[in-house]
Amino acid sequence: MVLATPVGCFKSVIEEVGPFLKKGAIVTDVGSVKGRLAREMEGLMPEGVTFVGGHPIAGSDRSGIDAATENLFVGAKCIITPTEHTPEEAVRKVTELWTAIGAEVCFLSPEEHDLVFALVSHLPHLIAYTLVNTVSDVNPEYIHYAGKGFKDTTRVALSSPELWRDICFKNKENLLDLVQRFQESLTSMVDALKRNDSEELESLFEKAQRLRGKL
Amino acid sequence: MVLATPVGCFKSVIEEVGPFLKKGAIVTDVGSVKGRLAREMEGLMPEGVTFVGGHPIAGSDRSGIDAATENLFVGAKCIITPTEHTPEEAVRKVTELWTAIGAEVCFLSPEEHDLVFALVSHLPHLIAYTLVNTVSDVNPEYIHYAGKGFKDTTRVALSSPELWRDICFKNKENLLDLVQRFQESLTSMVDALKRNDSEELESLFEKAQRLRGKL
Repeated sequence: MVLATPVGCFKSVIEEVGPFLKKGAIVTDVGSVKGRLAREMEGLMPEGVTFVGGHPIAGSDRSGIDAATENLFVGAKCIITPTEHTPEEAVRKVTELWTAIGAEVCFLSPEEHDLVFALVSHLPHLIAYTLVNTVSDVNPEYIHYAGKGFKDTTRVALSSPELWRDICFKNKENLLDLVQRFQESLTSMVDALKRNDSEELESLFEKAQRLRGKL
Repeated sequence: MVLATPVGCFKSVIEEVGPFLKKGAIVTDVGSVKGRLAREMEGLMPEGVTFVGGHPIAGSDRSGIDAATENLFVGAKCIITPTEHTPEEAVRKVTELWTAIGAEVCFLSPEEHDLVFALVSHLPHLIAYTLVNTVSDVNPEYIHYAGKGFKDTTRVALSSPELWRDICFKNKENLLDLVQRFQESLTSMVDALKRNDSEELESLFEKAQRLRGKL
């Protein structure tokens, strides 16, 4: 069974359908958060049923059946997050499922998964929502002057508020830590700007350009 | 004459070529900053030469001749920033230049222009560079887990560090004010997260989603 609801509903879905699962069944998911949630899910499985966390890095700001595309997972990374309790056989089956539809599978612990995706996904979503709200607070009419740069930078702010609210709460500790790191990095740019340190500001921009260029 | 160097070079270019400009010539530009710079440029014009600020909202993170495309300005907005000293005839000629290559012209004062573009362009660039540097500071290897969301959110961090350093310094006051507004907006999300106020966080995301949806 593949759980594909917002992560905030996983536990209630399993409480409801758990009693009807056959022995030997494998439950996996496509949720953006693992960590404590994946450990809890493991504990909620009925006897003989195995949980293997999964997270395909695919999709867009769109949701619902109209956003479906048959090639969504071709060439996409899919992270599988086994714990020390996950049977190898179950990991193998879930891996086969993803490679069969064209995804490239990697493995991370549930905890490292959550740190990585707080950094490359959850923080950018929070920041994109914040950028749009800054426009809203200054003068919402100014949004009409936005060009392609603003549109790309804030595209993920079109994503489902309910879905992303759930993700933020489920990965709260990592996200709060990383907001802190983000603010320190922003402060170093602001300080360079304030003291007219043109070399330092350019070198901070270069550092970012270099790493972004690896993608 | 159309100035299309990084904005930090405008003054030295005019000092060099100014003496060779014919009476009746119009100097315009495609720079991302106006404000005080546009007023200074106006003052630097030799007698009989008029400055009219211009800013086409087009282009990408790429620069140089290899990035040229013949339809770059078709359907793009172009902001013209006349001051109280700019002759109507010069504004008309620059407007015609832009409409002839397919752009849609709007007018803003140099000062409002700089506030608007600090908000919808310069701040997003600073934030995109900051997001990438946050990854760099935590663990640069994690960049390889980035999906489409991260790529879009940080695409503008591929932009020329030299160009954007100049823009940030030329529009420093607006940018510093807006970083402050951005931080306030981020703090309101972080506070909702910290006090587990799920309704408030969802409503902040919804506010952003609604405004972004207008683009």
